[in-house]
Parts: sequence; structure tokens; C-alpha cells
Amino acid sequence: MTLRHLTSINDLSVSEMEKIFLHAQAYLEELGDVQSPFRIARSTEGCRGSILATLFYEPSTRTRLSFESAMSRLGGGVISSADPKSSSAVKGESLADTIRIVSGYADLIALRHPREGAAKLAAEYASVPVINGGDGAHEHPTQTLCDLFTIRREKGALAGLNIAVLGDLKAGRTVHSLVYALARFGATIMTFPAGGLGLPDSVDWRLRNELACERLTGNDLGPEIAVGAIYQPRRPAAARRPTVDVLYVTRFQKERASDGVGEYPVVDSAFLSAMALREALVMHPLPRVDELDAALDTNPRAAYFRQASYGVPIRMALIRQFLGYQSEQTGTPDSRESVLQQSDLVCANRNCISRDAVEAQSAPGKFVVVAERRPRCFYCEDETIDAC
Amino acid sequence: MTLRHLTSINDLSVSEMEKIFLHAQAYLEELGDVQSPFRIARSTEGCRGSILATLFYEPSTRTRLSFESAMSRLGGGVISSADPKSSSAVKGESLADTIRIVSGYADLIALRHPREGAAKLAAEYASVPVINGGDGAHEHPTQTLCDLFTIRREKGALAGLNIAVLGDLKAGRTVHSLVYALARFGATIMTFPAGGLGLPDSVDWRLRNELACERLTGNDLGPEIAVGAIYQPRRPAAARRPTVDVLYVTRFQKERASDGVGEYPVVDSAFLSAMALREALVMHPLPRVDELDAALDTNPRAAYFRQASYGVPIRMALIRQFLGYQSEQTGTPDSRESVLQQSDLVCANRNCISRDAVEAQSAPGKFVVVAERRPRCFYCEDETIDAC
Amino acid sequence: MTLRHLTSINDLSVSEMEKIFLHAQAYLEELGDVQSPFRIARSTEGCRGSILATLFYEPSTRTRLSFESAMSRLGGGVISSADPKSSSAVKGESLADTIRIVSGYADLIALRHPREGAAKLAAEYASVPVINGGDGAHEHPTQTLCDLFTIRREKGALAGLNIAVLGDLKAGRTVHSLVYALARFGATIMTFPAGGLGLPDSVDWRLRNELACERLTGNDLGPEIAVGAIYQPRRPAAARRPTVDVLYVTRFQKERASDGVGEYPVVDSAFLSAMALREALVMHPLPRVDELDAALDTNPRAAYFRQASYGVPIRMALIRQFLGYQSEQTGTPDSRESVLQQSDLVCANRNCISRDAVEAQSAPGKFVVVAERRPRCFYCEDETIDAC
Repeated sequence: MTLRHLTSINDLSVSEMEKIFLHAQAYLEELGDVQSPFRIARSTEGCRGSILATLFYEPSTRTRLSFESAMSRLGGGVISSADPKSSSAVKGESLADTIRIVSGYADLIALRHPREGAAKLAAEYASVPVINGGDGAHEHPTQTLCDLFTIRREKGALAGLNIAVLGDLKAGRTVHSLVYALARFGATIMTFPAGGLGLPDSVDWRLRNELACERLTGNDLGPEIAVGAIYQPRRPAAARRPTVDVLYVTRFQKERASDGVGEYPVVDSAFLSAMALREALVMHPLPRVDELDAALDTNPRAAYFRQASYGVPIRMALIRQFLGYQSEQTGTPDSRESVLQQSDLVCANRNCISRDAVEAQSAPGKFVVVAERRPRCFYCEDETIDAC
Repeated sequence: MTLRHLTSINDLSVSEMEKIFLHAQAYLEELGDVQSPFRIARSTEGCRGSILATLFYEPSTRTRLSFESAMSRLGGGVISSADPKSSSAVKGESLADTIRIVSGYADLIALRHPREGAAKLAAEYASVPVINGGDGAHEHPTQTLCDLFTIRREKGALAGLNIAVLGDLKAGRTVHSLVYALARFGATIMTFPAGGLGLPDSVDWRLRNELACERLTGNDLGPEIAVGAIYQPRRPAAARRPTVDVLYVTRFQKERASDGVGEYPVVDSAFLSAMALREALVMHPLPRVDELDAALDTNPRAAYFRQASYGVPIRMALIRQFLGYQSEQTGTPDSRESVLQQSDLVCANRNCISRDAVEAQSAPGKFVVVAERRPRCFYCEDETIDAC
Repeated sequence: MTLRHLTSINDLSVSEMEKIFLHAQAYLEELGDVQSPFRIARSTEGCRGSILATLFYEPSTRTRLSFESAMSRLGGGVISSADPKSSSAVKGESLADTIRIVSGYADLIALRHPREGAAKLAAEYASVPVINGGDGAHEHPTQTLCDLFTIRREKGALAGLNIAVLGDLKAGRTVHSLVYALARFGATIMTFPAGGLGLPDSVDWRLRNELACERLTGNDLGPEIAVGAIYQPRRPAAARRPTVDVLYVTRFQKERASDGVGEYPVVDSAFLSAMALREALVMHPLPRVDELDAALDTNPRAAYFRQASYGVPIRMALIRQFLGYQSEQTGTPDSRESVLQQSDLVCANRNCISRDAVEAQSAPGKFVVVAERRPRCFYCEDETIDAC
């Protein structure tokens, strides 16, 4: 029996995700249509007596409140630390110590942290499941579950679809979790990066080497659209179509950028009139700033508010799964890897949790060796490594 | 069936308020006397399975905690965002977007915001009822329900009473909601403004033109007291008496003032010894700073702690009403108005939510046309309008 | 019938503490072993319908979340104000007013405050029990209950043990509550103060004059360890042994220090190899910074994470006791004292709640006269008094 965590979307097998979608669908029906006023709110009592801790070291409305709403709808209790300045972090406490302690107060921990790899570190020290609610620019797997659930509801399936991701693909953690999952479900990924903000090398490498994608060059979507790259399953379900099924827009992650960005695309009705986008469903993890025109909100193709509304049933299903089924450990993509602990190497990503002065003792240089590749950081999954 | 909100005290009919008072009285008896130690706390399970979201963009102790206590006493759940710096607002998200999202997480939203008209804007985008917990200097209707409930308990009725409001009547949002309600219940309002801080023109206009008050000049309360104006029902219940039944004291709203205030009245036992105030009940929405002497606290006429203690039963009754009876839409004073949307006009109140750069797209110039008067802002209800 | 509060560990009799330990043990078994994953979380419904308010004017993770988890496990509700900047304190409201109001919203208040004596002040104005979650450098009695419970579980008893307290004994509030309790349970206290940070005179005086301790000089623990003082029960249970049973480490309270500290001891395996410490259990109230080497974490003598894990069952027992048994007032060490209110004297401790400008009116000069001694401050229990 091993304790299960959700630090990366790759911690879940495809069949586990399918199970979560099935349960989320049931909760959605039980709650009533969350889009309509006068819905009758009903809660299951399935988690009465259990406690969720939400530890948020970065601002959040959506993720924290939807986790808390989900736990409340399940009849459970919530304890929350939403402001880092009100917590013991200001006294210099390490994340490892905080997590060990909070493990004694709650049955499940949802964590958001500004450093990449923080969820992985937390999982090492927790005695209850840790769910990553966003760790720096690394991953945001629970958002991805909402995204996938939305696409399946609106498009019927994931395999064979053309999904375009647009905007800040470098620091956008929701994009990283999403593309891994899309690859595993057999979708084709098209990138429309804002200037200089393409997928990190580590994500590109994993798509091609671990998730069986072929990177295509060339652009058959027409001259109106600046495609970065196309990642296609090695054995695609169908012949390629020069149209986009889903356009996934993201905001510029200014809080993670070292400097400003040049031109950032704005998705409005003009943008969507390009031939290849004529049928595209528009999604966005929100919050949006200026990159998505509010005039689109009433367009039936605008799926982003529906997407957000699935946050509660998805997290209800996820909480149930992690509270009740920890023992069903199944193979994950990482299961064949060996972990290497080496004190003379450090991760080159300065925002990795292992580079934080307070956390250093709890998070020593630790690397995953994958095939013939040079090791990648166990925490942030970056592949650039420095000597100490 | 229309979704009901409580953005202004004028959204409730007199009979709806009476119903809330009746239910609050029942809850008060059920909870035991909240003034006494050793009370037996009991909760009804009337709202089990429902969730209240408290979104507070301004500091609060009383309003937020009493809402949350009320929902907890009703057996329901609470999700809370109490610190704007920990929410998605810091990422530049508009209130409209936040409200649409949180509508999917909760069954009722209590909102506090520093901008006038924010609750009105939120109500436009919510798919669940929005209750205004204070919007800038505009209104604070749930405080008014506590105020009215207190006066009725202590004085037996509202019609025919002389109620004096003292202090910062310009920015004091509790005063604005209170005077509208007092006018509708048939009380006479006397204003004792601190220097330069009288009722806004828009409130004065509505009292005289929409709420059937006559503004009297002259002062029959004696030379000791600086009366600003007297608003009396057109058909008063009784002849005017030169005494004050209730003195409603408010603090200087320094967070909304562009500059300091000159002399601010201090209510102490000397002040209360004026002939016209000899029998006056002393009320205050709290928090107080220096304008109300703590030496009065033990005086039986000091009703402010009793007034505060009704916060929970009143909000229990309100939550029940808005969760359960959304469909009983009844006429409100605004129901005969027409709304005019005009993009070449803007509200002249720079603190109106429609003047906020982030909110501009969600809150376009929108005005209510009342009778032969020039239009007033749909959001903040101010009447000064500029061309763009 | 008197309302009971827990402002100081001395508010509880030894038999009341024994009762709390007994109930905590039962809750611990009911919850399952909180150290193990896959525990089955279960809650009692013993406090359903009751509400706990956590008012924290200083940062906290452990104390606040363990209180909230305890109340949630008991089936009760929680309302929380964890960020002073989001509360009415920013509008200038006094603690006395806040407490009076919140007494109407909750059935029990847990308070943390940066000023010494704040809990005592709160207790004077509350109509529900107030539990001190730490008041400045004064006391932290609920931490002490966890500490005592840990020692009893690991060592079987308290009487006759040698307990060493190390570090910042001056500002470390957990130490003050702990040494009072240890003296009452018949343990011997050894102090290892960091340079200049010994026990305050007032704590030393009470140990010797009120809690029947003899202060010994000399050091029989060997030259490796710098003992400050030894406090031994007047009629010790057994002959003194030159060994330490428990080493209680504390961090430097930098937030309360006027200037930095010189050398601060670091407890690591070298430190623990001193002959007198060879068997010592290592405890720490946490958070730790650098004074306790993380390399000790896996040492079976390291009891600090177990100690932290008792926070929930101890607070469950405490909440039950204070919600249900307020009427069982028993004699406390202070019961023979007389209280003197004298407006021409002020407490000399500038951080005492009675010296706060906003609180001054609610907390006038008030002193406790003990035997032939000069009076000590009723609030912060300091003995230095100035004329106004």
C-alpha cells in the first residue's frame, strides 16, 4: 500500500482519469445544472468527518474556493491558510515542516506554491495525500481535469482532436499539465506561442520521448495563424485535418516573467474568423486579463465559463478518489524511472523549490534518470543541471 | 421567476422586511439570549447542503463573521475570500468574471467592495442571489435590517418615531440605507451632520421625490443641537414632538474621505444631556473610534451592543429568505423605472464601479430614467452624469 | 456560576488538566494513529451546532489550524479572522469592542495577539469563554497542554522528571506556561538560556514564591552544558539525578526582540552527545528555524512531530471542556488574590495590552496584590509598575 499524491497529471493513469470523469458527471447531475439559477443545491454526505486543508502560498480564487466548495458539498470540513503572511512561513518555517504538521490536522492537503516542485517536496513529507493546486510554472493538474472534462462534454471524445494552446506556453502551468494529458489521450497538440513564450524544452522533450508524440513542422492552418509546433500521436487515430477543434487561450503570467512581453495575441471575433478556427471551441483556464475579448462571452463557442463551472464536481470526484482509494496504486509513466540523489549537483532552475534557501535541507539535489537521457530534477522536472 | 438580489434596501418591500424580522425573532429565541453567558447554542439544519460565499474586498469583522456564523447556525457551508491580496483580483480579474465563477461554487454570495455600485454590477453577472455587504459609500442594507430590528424591539414600532442620524452622513453607507427604510416605514429623520458631511444630493432627492418625505427647515430641538434637515412623511402618523427617540451615531469614514474632517461630534454623557436627547436610545453600526464615549457602554440607553448582537439572527432570516424564496418577486420602488444604456455618457462619480478601468467593459454607462428627472447611474445611483 | 476562560495555564487546576489528558487520549484513539497514512478519519458529533471563532492578530499555522481541525472533528462550525489587515482593527476598533461583538457570533473564542495581557483583557469583555492562543511574550497555555501530554505519553509521568528548557526563555511564551505547569506537577526545571535571554523576573518570582520551587545554584550536569538555574519542588519526589529527561528547545523570538541575539545554541547530534543529555527526549513547540538540526528528525528521541500531532486531540478535549463545563469553577492559584484598580499607576511593560493607545480606555491600570509583594499587572502579570 503506497500513499498516492497528485503532483503531476502524470501521476494519474488514463483509466483513473476516466473514473474521475464518470464520478464528476454523477455529481454534476446531483448538484443540478450549475449554470441555472434556482438550482436545488444538494450535497452528498460522502466525506462527512474528513477534513481538507487548503494551503495557498499564492493568490487564488477559483482553485481554492472550488476545492473548499467541493469538500463542503461532500459534507466534509475545511481548514485553510490562504495568506502566506498570516502563516508560520513568515517565521521562517520550511514547507517540509509545515506539511508534516498539517498532515496531522487534515486528511487531504491541496497546496499552491510559487516554486516549481513544491508539491513534489510536500508529497515526500506528508502522511496524507497532497494535491497540487499549482506549483510555480510547473503543473496544475486539477485544472487539466476540468479542461479534459469540458472537451469531452462538448466534443464527445479526446482522441483524434486538434487542440491548439495559445499564449504564454512557457510559464503557463495549466498548459504543461494539459499537453501531457492530451498526448496520452491521443489528441494532436498545436502550439500558438506568444513571442518568445513557447513550451519549455523539458515539456517538448517529454512529449516527444515519453509520450510518443511526433513533432511536425510546417503549417497547414493557413497564413493567418502563427503555428509554433504540432505534436501528433505516432499512430494517429485519423488523417490530419487543417482545422482546430479547441482553442485553449492563456494569459501572460506576469508574476513569473523576468521582463515584459512584446506582442501578446488577443482573441476576439476577428481572430476567430480565420478559416482554421471557424469551428473552434474557445477555452481559457481563467483569470483572463486582456487576451480574451469579453464580447465573446455570449458566443456559444465560448466554453470558458462552463469549463470553470465544472471545477466543483471534478474536485468532488477527485477528493473522493484520493480519500478513499489510496491503495489502488497503478503504474504511472514514471514508474520505470530510477531516482538518483547526488549532493554535488543542483537543479539549474533558480525557482525550483530545491533552490530555496529555507527548503534546501529538506530538498537535496535529487534527480530522475530516464533512459539514456541526462537526469532531470526530481522536483521541478527541469533537465538543466549544474554542478554545485 | 426572477433571481432576487439585495443590492439596496429598496430591493425589499416593507412586507418582506416584516417577514425577515419575524423569522429573526424566532431564531433569536431559538439561539437563546445571545447576551447571556451559558446560553445553549442550537442550530437549525434548515440550510444543510447549501453554501454561502463571502467575497470581501474591504476589511470587515462584523459583517463577514456574522454572515458566516449565521450560515453555520443554519447548518450550511461557507467559502470565503476575505483578503483581496490573496484573490485573483491581484492578477487583474474583473469583478464580473469572479462573480460568474463563484456563482458556480456557492448558492448565495455576500459581497463587500470599495466601489459604489459593485453589488449592482455583481448582481448583473451572478446566477445566484447577491447580497450587498457594503459597496463603497453607497449602501449597506443588511446593517439596516439589524438597525430596524433593534429599534422595533426597543421602541415597539418605527412609524411616528423621530430618528436622528449623526456624523459622516456623506460617506456613511449604513446611513443611506437606513434613511430610505425609515422613510418607507413612516419615521421622521433628523440629520446632525459633521461639518461638511451631510447627506449626498442623490439621497436627499430620493427621500423627497421617491419616498414621499417633506424636508422641513427650522430647528425646534433647542439651541444645543445643530440640526441639518428634517425629513417628515407627507402624512405624518402624529404631530411632531421636539424630542429624539433614537440617536444613530456613525464614525468618520476616513478611508473614503479625500481629506480630513474639521470638528467631529463626540457623543458622551454631556452631549446626551441636551433636553431633546434625554430619552434617546443610542445606536451605532460599529466599529466606533472616538465619536462615542466608552463610558456610555453601561448606560441602559446604549443599544449598540444589543444592535450588533442581532446580526446573526437577522442574517439567518435573510439567508433563508434569499435561498428559498427567490421567486416571490414583488414590486420595489424602482419597478416603474426604465433603464437607459448610453455609451456616450459616464457616471460622474469617480469611485463608481463603472469608472474602474478593469470593470469598464462589464459595466458600461447605464442609467435609470426616473420621471421627469435627468437619469441617475444604474450602479451607484448618483445623478451627476458627464459626457464621455 | 462563573464564566471560565483559559488566559494562563494557571487558570486550570491539576485535576482539570488530568481530565483533558484523559479525553485527549480517547479522541486520539478514536481518530486513529494520526502518524500513520491510511488512517480512518472519524469525527464525533459532540459539538454539532456550536461555533468556534478564531481571532488571530499574529501569524499562525499550527495553533489556528489545529483549533479549527479540532472543532471540525467535533462536528462544530468555525468562523475565522486570521489577518489583522482584513479586520475592523484597521478601522481603529478596540479589542474590547471586537470581543463583545464576536461573543454574539460564537460559543467560544480562541485569540492570538501580539500584546501581553490581551487574552486577559478579552476575557473581561467576553460573554463566552476565551482561550489564549498566545499573547505576546506572556503565555501560550494550549501549547503547554500538548507538551505535558507528550511528556506523559513518552515518559509515563511528570513528577520527578528533569526537564530542561533551552533557548529564548525571555520572550518564549510557550516556556512560561510550561514551567508553571511543570512546577505544579512536581517536575524539576533546568534552564539553558541563550545569552541574555533567561526567564523574566516575574516568572522566576512566581516559580519560587507561588509554585513552591527552590532555586538551586551549581551545575552537576557536567562542564559541557551551561545551566542557568534549577527549580526543584520543595519536597522532591526523589533524589536529584544529574541527567536530563526532556530537552525542550525553542527558537529565538525575533519578532519580539528589540535587537538581535549573540550566540544562539544549535541542538544537533553533537550537542545531544553530552553525557547528561544521552537519554533526553527532544521537544520543540515549532516552528523551528536553525536551532534544531533537521538531521535529528529520524532519531527516535526526536519527539517534536509527535508533540505537534497531539494538537488536535488536546484541543478537542479542551473545546469540550470549555463548551460544556463552564460552571465547574475550581480554585486556581490566583483565587486568594485581591485585585486593585488604581488609575495613578501604569504597568511598566510597554508591550502590555494596557499600554496600547486604542485599548487604554478598556484596560485601565489594574493590579493584583499577592501576599506581601508589591502588586503585579492584572493583564500581563509583570511586576514593574510606574507612576503615571
